[in-house]
Amino acid sequence: MRENKLKTMWAEDKGALNCWLNMDSSLAAEAMMAADWDSYTIDMQHSLVDWHSALTMLQTLSQGDKPLLMRVPWLDPAWIMRALDAGAYGIVCPMINTRDDCEAFVGACRYAPVGYRSWGPVRGLSYGGPDYFHKANETILTLAMIETREALENVDAIMSTPGLDGIYVGPNDLAISLGYEPQYMPKDAEVAEAFDTILDAAKRHNVVAGIHCGSGEMAGEMTKKGFRFCTILGATRLMVMGANDALGAARNIING
Amino acid sequence: MRENKLKTMWAEDKGALNCWLNMDSSLAAEAMMAADWDSYTIDMQHSLVDWHSALTMLQTLSQGDKPLLMRVPWLDPAWIMRALDAGAYGIVCPMINTRDDCEAFVGACRYAPVGYRSWGPVRGLSYGGPDYFHKANETILTLAMIETREALENVDAIMSTPGLDGIYVGPNDLAISLGYEPQYMPKDAEVAEAFDTILDAAKRHNVVAGIHCGSGEMAGEMTKKGFRFCTILGATRLMVMGANDALGAARNIING
Amino acid sequence: MRENKLKTMWAEDKGALNCWLNMDSSLAAEAMMAADWDSYTIDMQHSLVDWHSALTMLQTLSQGDKPLLMRVPWLDPAWIMRALDAGAYGIVCPMINTRDDCEAFVGACRYAPVGYRSWGPVRGLSYGGPDYFHKANETILTLAMIETREALENVDAIMSTPGLDGIYVGPNDLAISLGYEPQYMPKDAEVAEAFDTILDAAKRHNVVAGIHCGSGEMAGEMTKKGFRFCTILGATRLMVMGANDALGAARNIING
Amino acid sequence: MRENKLKTMWAEDKGALNCWLNMDSSLAAEAMMAADWDSYTIDMQHSLVDWHSALTMLQTLSQGDKPLLMRVPWLDPAWIMRALDAGAYGIVCPMINTRDDCEAFVGACRYAPVGYRSWGPVRGLSYGGPDYFHKANETILTLAMIETREALENVDAIMSTPGLDGIYVGPNDLAISLGYEPQYMPKDAEVAEAFDTILDAAKRHNVVAGIHCGSGEMAGEMTKKGFRFCTILGATRLMVMGANDALGAARNIING
Amino acid sequence: MRENKLKTMWAEDKGALNCWLNMDSSLAAEAMMAADWDSYTIDMQHSLVDWHSALTMLQTLSQGDKPLLMRVPWLDPAWIMRALDAGAYGIVCPMINTRDDCEAFVGACRYAPVGYRSWGPVRGLSYGGPDYFHKANETILTLAMIETREALENVDAIMSTPGLDGIYVGPNDLAISLGYEPQYMPKDAEVAEAFDTILDAAKRHNVVAGIHCGSGEMAGEMTKKGFRFCTILGATRLMVMGANDALGAARNIING
Amino acid sequence: MRENKLKTMWAEDKGALNCWLNMDSSLAAEAMMAADWDSYTIDMQHSLVDWHSALTMLQTLSQGDKPLLMRVPWLDPAWIMRALDAGAYGIVCPMINTRDDCEAFVGACRYAPVGYRSWGPVRGLSYGGPDYFHKANETILTLAMIETREALENVDAIMSTPGLDGIYVGPNDLAISLGYEPQYMPKDAEVAEAFDTILDAAKRHNVVAGIHCGSGEMAGEMTKKGFRFCTILGATRLMVMGANDALGAARNIING
Repeated sequence: MRENKLKTMWAEDKGALNCWLNMDSSLAAEAMMAADWDSYTIDMQHSLVDWHSALTMLQTLSQGDKPLLMRVPWLDPAWIMRALDAGAYGIVCPMINTRDDCEAFVGACRYAPVGYRSWGPVRGLSYGGPDYFHKANETILTLAMIETREALENVDAIMSTPGLDGIYVGPNDLAISLGYEPQYMPKDAEVAEAFDTILDAAKRHNVVAGIHCGSGEMAGEMTKKGFRFCTILGATRLMVMGANDALGAARNIING
Repeated sequence: MRENKLKTMWAEDKGALNCWLNMDSSLAAEAMMAADWDSYTIDMQHSLVDWHSALTMLQTLSQGDKPLLMRVPWLDPAWIMRALDAGAYGIVCPMINTRDDCEAFVGACRYAPVGYRSWGPVRGLSYGGPDYFHKANETILTLAMIETREALENVDAIMSTPGLDGIYVGPNDLAISLGYEPQYMPKDAEVAEAFDTILDAAKRHNVVAGIHCGSGEMAGEMTKKGFRFCTILGATRLMVMGANDALGAARNIING
Repeated sequence: MRENKLKTMWAEDKGALNCWLNMDSSLAAEAMMAADWDSYTIDMQHSLVDWHSALTMLQTLSQGDKPLLMRVPWLDPAWIMRALDAGAYGIVCPMINTRDDCEAFVGACRYAPVGYRSWGPVRGLSYGGPDYFHKANETILTLAMIETREALENVDAIMSTPGLDGIYVGPNDLAISLGYEPQYMPKDAEVAEAFDTILDAAKRHNVVAGIHCGSGEMAGEMTKKGFRFCTILGATRLMVMGANDALGAARNIING
Repeated sequence: MRENKLKTMWAEDKGALNCWLNMDSSLAAEAMMAADWDSYTIDMQHSLVDWHSALTMLQTLSQGDKPLLMRVPWLDPAWIMRALDAGAYGIVCPMINTRDDCEAFVGACRYAPVGYRSWGPVRGLSYGGPDYFHKANETILTLAMIETREALENVDAIMSTPGLDGIYVGPNDLAISLGYEPQYMPKDAEVAEAFDTILDAAKRHNVVAGIHCGSGEMAGEMTKKGFRFCTILGATRLMVMGANDALGAARNIING
Repeated sequence: MRENKLKTMWAEDKGALNCWLNMDSSLAAEAMMAADWDSYTIDMQHSLVDWHSALTMLQTLSQGDKPLLMRVPWLDPAWIMRALDAGAYGIVCPMINTRDDCEAFVGACRYAPVGYRSWGPVRGLSYGGPDYFHKANETILTLAMIETREALENVDAIMSTPGLDGIYVGPNDLAISLGYEPQYMPKDAEVAEAFDTILDAAKRHNVVAGIHCGSGEMAGEMTKKGFRFCTILGATRLMVMGANDALGAARNIING
Repeated sequence: MRENKLKTMWAEDKGALNCWLNMDSSLAAEAMMAADWDSYTIDMQHSLVDWHSALTMLQTLSQGDKPLLMRVPWLDPAWIMRALDAGAYGIVCPMINTRDDCEAFVGACRYAPVGYRSWGPVRGLSYGGPDYFHKANETILTLAMIETREALENVDAIMSTPGLDGIYVGPNDLAISLGYEPQYMPKDAEVAEAFDTILDAAKRHNVVAGIHCGSGEMAGEMTKKGFRFCTILGATRLMVMGANDALGAARNIING
């Protein structure tokens, strides 16, 4: 089965910088292959991307060798298994708040006897390889989102779930759940502490910690703290930032 | 009929900074509304965008008040008239090399008696307004691309075509046609001279000159020279630049 | 945050006439903007519309200022939250039969602390405005469908759910559940009584009552009874009625 | 080969009432099968419908036995032949202004030796039948649009083109070309005369005359005059008329 | 209501050969109508097909008179009811492991009082007929997938569920659940025994037994054993087999 | 620039077996990668495939290293250049009947000074490589279809066109043009002679000869005669053949 390069990086304790694809366009995804991302995640929760676009994005990105993940919109076996059949090498699952949630999530990603995933990995086989059945359970990544006060309270129960590879912090939802405004880089001490609590727990349970970052700088700092899967914003926001930079350069000359 | 803000800007001798949409995604187009562009052009020539995506992009961008244009793939009445019926407020037409080309182009954009456009402006009416028939001929912009040696030789014949609003320089094709490599900011003197030849002719014929630029800086400089419709690269390239900036910032911290 | 004009109408005790969009076409949706509806609801339950079409319909309808709602196919957080992230200003949720159902529904539409909606309102922010986080909970409408005998029995428990804005009667399902044929304007006394029971309860609990109507006349009568959100059939049926009228007029002359 | 019911009707001198499909939706097309149209034409010129939608509309409408036609956006063999391969039983071609135009149009619809259509009728075979090669030339309808002053002047040369089945009047473009505002039912005498000129010529040359009508009443009157293929507006407009009727009925009761 | 030919075949104890559509293409579906299948099932679980393609496939296949089914991705009322509203004449539901699962599944396919399906059968009415409400409960097929050890243990409880029409063996998942590799024709005795157990139970409970087969030969043998709904692989695999045959024939001559 | 493996094969005088993709599905295209084709051609002339599907098929097939070609619907620069910008490594152009046709075709595929192709190879650069500008003219294949009596008469003028890489016989159209029924393997002597005439001319002019074949056997025989680019039917027909084989095997056992 084709290597999951995230696992290789993590084995070497290297932090991955993850691209967040939130446009419904295989052309946009293909263009993003020109930047030096370590992995690509298609967001199906908040991005408004439809299934067909997500599929063609996976097909397009399969030209490269970077791991492809999908964030599903909710803890739902239909979404999770379709994402995996489409060739995703990992699932980011939102709102994992309890041990039961986490077991249901991990089980949906694993074939029996350790899980209840149904067989039929169309792109899994063509992208992953003919030994997919024997290697999928160990190759596919399961990343549970920790983003509520309830999850924070259950952090040990969640992180000790057998088969869980990592967790992924959703800073905005976590802040809201703790009673603050949505925020990336913590502005409130309780949020900052929650980051530490989660990161410490992840180290303790030997699962990878990932986090959604609001800037390249935050991704750098979080990597230095020990996060090993740092997303920087999303493709649409990066596009607008690129546009603003170019427009600024132009207007500086015009007005200068 | 809804104002064409490019005409207003040009009447005040202001240079417009134009966004080049080359992703097949109404989500990407909508995201780009957050940047301060003066106009949006959907490229149907080189972008690989399909018709349905272009339509939904026009519908989405119609939430705003910036003029929407389309570059058609070739001098073809089917493409030109469909673009206009879809609500485009201007057409950029590639490879206008002769006076005949230019007359055929302009005629396809105008109702009789000055042209041969066929009636049926579905979105023209809903976006433009009920007086579309009476105002369309004067509101819709016709921009002929000057991008070959032949066009350069016919520059006066082309630019004096009645009903032509402006020209648009395609620097890459122009350079190739003159015997050089594709290039934005002229590296070869003959290309630089061609820019001046075209700009001078545009001023002489009182048509607007536009140009496709390879950076914000080039757009600034070309505006200062007198170009009044400067595109900066395209959405995909700006997205990659934004990604590279963010990745650079992250890696600087990680490696620094 | 952009005003929700339904809330304004209801504050003035005005009844809204709601358009039911059930074609998978942003062109059809845009055409419907020419009629004088007070709001537009995209049906994702019975209409067969796909997600991508629903998204482009929302983008297209965002040119206007009428509130846009979505009926989701089932009480499912994935559907509800995606609809809201796509800019819907209200959710109609089918088959709310118990207080638990209703709490799960309302919670999915509200950010913490009053609900469990996840943050990431892409079009919510661009359509609604930058204060979306602070205003969404009070602006987004939650309309629970009352359409079974069980719901009828639980009508007080359902309608007293904190955060519920209104209910929406599904006359066909209600009639079936009561043992009759599908019907709009009640043909059976028990169905008619159920309408009254629901409407009275809505008034008692100070939530808005809406209903799906089988004709303009029914919408008029239901509005007079006190329903404040009356849908008239759906776009496809209105199209066929328009076609039948035109065909009738033609054949009358031809045969007359 | 499956019967072309328009040919049968015309052989019996019956006038057909034609549905104009201008929404990009197979659901809308399927809904329209509930109305009693004699034929269905998908408009690819002014409607903004994309190719894939047109294809699925043809597939959907093939459940019924009414002839399916397509109006192509321009006299272009690529469009015409793709429409026919997709199973269209007739082509309406805009802007046929000269005998040369008309020969190019008809030739694109006919296999050698009478035309230059290329073989590969995917849906022609599955929808039409295995004898498609031998019957297509006589079954497929060719309808040339007469909608300019030039066409009016060439009316005999155009209508005498071998293989031409009929002509189709575009009243709006014809009026514009004659110097008037777009109009359906002639408001200007010269336009009304043009209708008569065309209809007389069609009778003289034994080709069917069709016309696009602005109402059911106009379609009735034109049928009585001798037009045998009368379109009534388009699906979007009929939908809005149906909506306006229903809204009017509702508001009458509410306000009455 | 249009006849469900599978029910007719089964009443005559005939075994149906079922086509498994797993390409997202109405063209592919239409092409498959040229082969002599007894029914067509669109797979939404493992196939990666999107909803819109599934809809247009159903519309396209409705030209013929063979029953159309859909396999939903999971036991989820939203998926099941949308499939039925789209005109499916039967649902294959994966992973039915308990009596509760089976009751939830069957209930989602039936209108009250025997189930909780919601009314709004858009294509059900147009494809099935105006008496859909009265006939749907008896016409629509419910096929529960038996594909885990748990299901095997609950086989009597599942198969005795009122309203269940049949079961469908998923050999790959069943083998995995029993601790073996995925396999079609049983290689392990325990899997072969499980087939017999299921088939015997189906006969005992008077429900139809179906099974997914890995070849035409297996479908033949399983039919002889008593299975009455045998699928042969899927469209993509059959296409590759056809390609391999043709390539082999060519290379034999070239190399021979 | 990535190697064009067809050129390599032809330099070694090996005959290529070409896959003809005529389903609008990237899933179908990806499945076909499992068969041992030497190249893949997407048909845009007779297949009814839409542009967006063609693009995603190219993106998907770019995972492999087999050359990807497109048959355009007509000699039209818009279609040809878009196909090349999308990464096609060769164009099959129908109905090249004269030297002028052929020069226009080849010119559209080549950058100046030898052609008039416009610059903007989005996928050309990402798929082909950064030296695309310098290598494209020699890497991209131009294959002119010879399929009419006129083309047969102009065979030397056509084949001697500078920059033409090969010709492609359309047997059905050629037979029709010569006055016979559509046919693959020649049934009429004049058609068989035409094949020889064309093949001889191709050898004389040192261009590759390709042909569309009706079976694997025909492809084998034509390769032995000297054709170097033999297509076998199309994906849909191969799928139906695979289905018929499987159904036959099943029914043999059932009935045997």
